[in-house]
Amino acid sequence: MRGGSEAPRVRSRAVVLVSGGMDSCVSAAIAVRQHEAALLHVSYGQRTEGRERAAFEAIADHYAVERRLAVRLDLLSAIGGSCLTDRAIEVPPADLSREGVPVSYVPFRNTHLLAAAVSWAEVLGAGAIYIGAVEEDSSGYPDCRRVYYDAFNRLIEVGTKPGARLRIETPLIDLGKAEIVRLGLDLAAPFDLTWSCYRSEERACGACDSCALRLRGFAGAGATDPIRYA
Amino acid sequence: MRGGSEAPRVRSRAVVLVSGGMDSCVSAAIAVRQHEAALLHVSYGQRTEGRERAAFEAIADHYAVERRLAVRLDLLSAIGGSCLTDRAIEVPPADLSREGVPVSYVPFRNTHLLAAAVSWAEVLGAGAIYIGAVEEDSSGYPDCRRVYYDAFNRLIEVGTKPGARLRIETPLIDLGKAEIVRLGLDLAAPFDLTWSCYRSEERACGACDSCALRLRGFAGAGATDPIRYA
Repeated sequence: MRGGSEAPRVRSRAVVLVSGGMDSCVSAAIAVRQHEAALLHVSYGQRTEGRERAAFEAIADHYAVERRLAVRLDLLSAIGGSCLTDRAIEVPPADLSREGVPVSYVPFRNTHLLAAAVSWAEVLGAGAIYIGAVEEDSSGYPDCRRVYYDAFNRLIEVGTKPGARLRIETPLIDLGKAEIVRLGLDLAAPFDLTWSCYRSEERACGACDSCALRLRGFAGAGATDPIRYA
Repeated sequence: MRGGSEAPRVRSRAVVLVSGGMDSCVSAAIAVRQHEAALLHVSYGQRTEGRERAAFEAIADHYAVERRLAVRLDLLSAIGGSCLTDRAIEVPPADLSREGVPVSYVPFRNTHLLAAAVSWAEVLGAGAIYIGAVEEDSSGYPDCRRVYYDAFNRLIEVGTKPGARLRIETPLIDLGKAEIVRLGLDLAAPFDLTWSCYRSEERACGACDSCALRLRGFAGAGATDPIRYA
């Protein structure tokens, strides 16, 4: 970590899922203070996968993490069913008061991401997995709720080698976007390196759900988002 | 199904995981009698993936299933940790009295397979997922136990769209290998099209755990295995 000055000590290993978005960046900022972090990124055929992958590498460079793994998962776009993975379904304009599960929901996506993290964690002997999931102030995805992570921790308990002692950590699950921005600023998380937009890889559109949530978070924190918008 | 003569009726849809081995073949034989089956195969860089994929296609042809999906998952071999996915780790000779989790265990593998099945089932509107997991008479993998599938069903409940009403079915979980052979013979399951060997894609080695379990099953059922051994 840049500017870290703690005394050296033996730190337990953690796998940190880093999509490249602002939440995963803050989750990584928390994890690297407490663990020897291994950063994991999954490209799954989403529209902005190249830009997100670049954000992942930039965040990993920022924290000088050598142990990093970027993997491809082609099956989610083969399966489709989401505007993020199926080019025939348009990304709708933001509607943060919408009820129900939005069309950007990628069916059961976080289970694929966490499964990759658990497989890697078993091989690395890691004791924790970090994911920047947010329950309340999010897009209404079922796999971003605390109840889902509780169920996943049970699955890990019974589905991995005895003695694996591995837990998922969701440090942001109860925070609003403005709180996440404030926390990230406190931790000097490199928001300038992150990418959230669902639509564009050049300038963020500012108009999709993900941009709208991000902008509302920075506004609520009284801060300026360092990335550029169209 | 060949020789099927049931009266036509509306049947619910199910996603059936078919590795190409004998257990998944019997699981498919059960599923196609009760559901409109969609067959799913996942290649994950295992040593015999080409032969297993061919077995999958042959089984799907046998049951005249048009809705089939074969996907690749490269991340498990990128992660390694198993003799099936890491060429540097040798497949040991069979030892069915071994205690503990064997080196053929692919960390958290079944979660990846089931995640693919759930994602596809959500898009298809399927109500069930079939997997030929066996608990007692198996290789000692943690993700082949009933307690794991109970935990996975809970994960589906909380991690999919409300109203998905999707359940994993494990029709073989409590059976021994000999019972599975007998059941398969009763259902005219095409064992001749299946592949179980961990090592070879030509003639089955007859000497790895998977061959040994299979041969013990046929012997226990007083039947002859129709595939050829080295």
